[in-house]
Amino acid sequence: MRLATLRVNGGFHVARVDDDHYVDLGPGDVGSLLADPGWRAHAATAGGERVQAGRADLAPVIPRPGKIVCVGLNYRTHITEMGRDLPEFPTLFAKFPEVLIGPHDELDLPPESDAVDWEAELVVVVGSRVRRADRASAEAAIAGYTVMNDVSMRDWQFRTREWLQGKTWEATTPLGPYLATPDELAPDAAITCTVDGEVVQSSTVADLLFDPADLVGYVSTMITLNPGDVIATGTTGGVGHARKPPRYLQKGQTLRTAVEGIGEMSNEVRRG
Amino acid sequence: MRLATLRVNGGFHVARVDDDHYVDLGPGDVGSLLADPGWRAHAATAGGERVQAGRADLAPVIPRPGKIVCVGLNYRTHITEMGRDLPEFPTLFAKFPEVLIGPHDELDLPPESDAVDWEAELVVVVGSRVRRADRASAEAAIAGYTVMNDVSMRDWQFRTREWLQGKTWEATTPLGPYLATPDELAPDAAITCTVDGEVVQSSTVADLLFDPADLVGYVSTMITLNPGDVIATGTTGGVGHARKPPRYLQKGQTLRTAVEGIGEMSNEVRRG
Repeated sequence: MRLATLRVNGGFHVARVDDDHYVDLGPGDVGSLLADPGWRAHAATAGGERVQAGRADLAPVIPRPGKIVCVGLNYRTHITEMGRDLPEFPTLFAKFPEVLIGPHDELDLPPESDAVDWEAELVVVVGSRVRRADRASAEAAIAGYTVMNDVSMRDWQFRTREWLQGKTWEATTPLGPYLATPDELAPDAAITCTVDGEVVQSSTVADLLFDPADLVGYVSTMITLNPGDVIATGTTGGVGHARKPPRYLQKGQTLRTAVEGIGEMSNEVRRG
Repeated sequence: MRLATLRVNGGFHVARVDDDHYVDLGPGDVGSLLADPGWRAHAATAGGERVQAGRADLAPVIPRPGKIVCVGLNYRTHITEMGRDLPEFPTLFAKFPEVLIGPHDELDLPPESDAVDWEAELVVVVGSRVRRADRASAEAAIAGYTVMNDVSMRDWQFRTREWLQGKTWEATTPLGPYLATPDELAPDAAITCTVDGEVVQSSTVADLLFDPADLVGYVSTMITLNPGDVIATGTTGGVGHARKPPRYLQKGQTLRTAVEGIGEMSNEVRRG
């Protein structure tokens, strides 16, 4: 099952994705839906108005997560090809919720940065309240998966030793298009980022060092995870900043971010 | 004027601090109060039930900030005594809202950390919506000040290069006791942290490298600040981790954190 958050008359509606159309399940968003413990059965069976896919306006699938936890350095092949040892612990940082944009929204480059870079990521969406979760509880707490491009302002990210200020620019992080339940994600699902059709990142989720249940367990050691919280699991090689010479997003480009079985986002880049 | 958030019958009330008692202004908290542009006049003049100070149960003054932005390395004397150059930019990181506890709540040391440390901080509370603020707009957007102890799990903080996982443990960060309007903060107000009465940190806010308006301006370059958002301005020398040998909080101790003119917090340390 795949679910989306639609923009309808200035508010949000939850929708189920059925083949080439959406079934509008009424007011709310995927985040508020997850707060209802009976969300799976309700979303799978409820009826509603049919909306043609091309006519839907998709919001960030969780428009206002309580927490956005991000992970760095988590693709095994990429870490070893950089000549580094595999880390013992995941590297964690945060984004604030105002960073999010929808999966087909325009991405405005802020005038203060000349080094806006891409990072395609698989995202874990939390479906139930959990603290100090063992592996079984962590797996049970995963509502499903979505996709993020952890767009990063490299000039600001590396001004100081903490990354936050390169990561939390308003309205620059696409999240979506869908929440897909765990059965939709193959163990070796491809993750891809393209810029104007050129593949710049390509890997599979099988290469994750800390997998989704590891991350839910680890983060929940320190803090309660609640329905609608999200954990972005990190990115693989191919970011623009590591290229020689470095490459960054330019106005007029189209940034596509996809995880096989979950969905694809497409964002036009503009100069804000 | 000083304002507090009281716990009343399982909810929150806003209160004005008048000499030795509180005036209960009714349901809400200081964060929700700030969302009303007329909050200053309302809070200054409204009447309500008198509550004796000793009988009040104080919540974190902003129980659920939209954003908690924290600053590292911001006391000039401390930076230079460490032999470092003054940084060009503030170092920023985040905490999630679930970290907060009230100014007199017990502080439970999590069983997973043996290195829980203190960091007394002056906190800026945002009073109006602001983005890309110049200095005058930044100053106008400051509702007032409060106090935080940015309690840090040093063993987790330094597991990786990003500090978040040492900073965002649930229910470990005292915030309060009051929001004090800017006129209550002297330019050289003392900031102090004591453990069982021993002064472990002592400085004045005059030593801040990036002052409150600088920080509001800087953060608002990247993201909108909203009423109730908070910026913790960093700590001075004297933390336990930098001592030889290092010292950390132990059960049974009393942690006091104060900024002159704003208020003092007192938290009993327990082993959770």
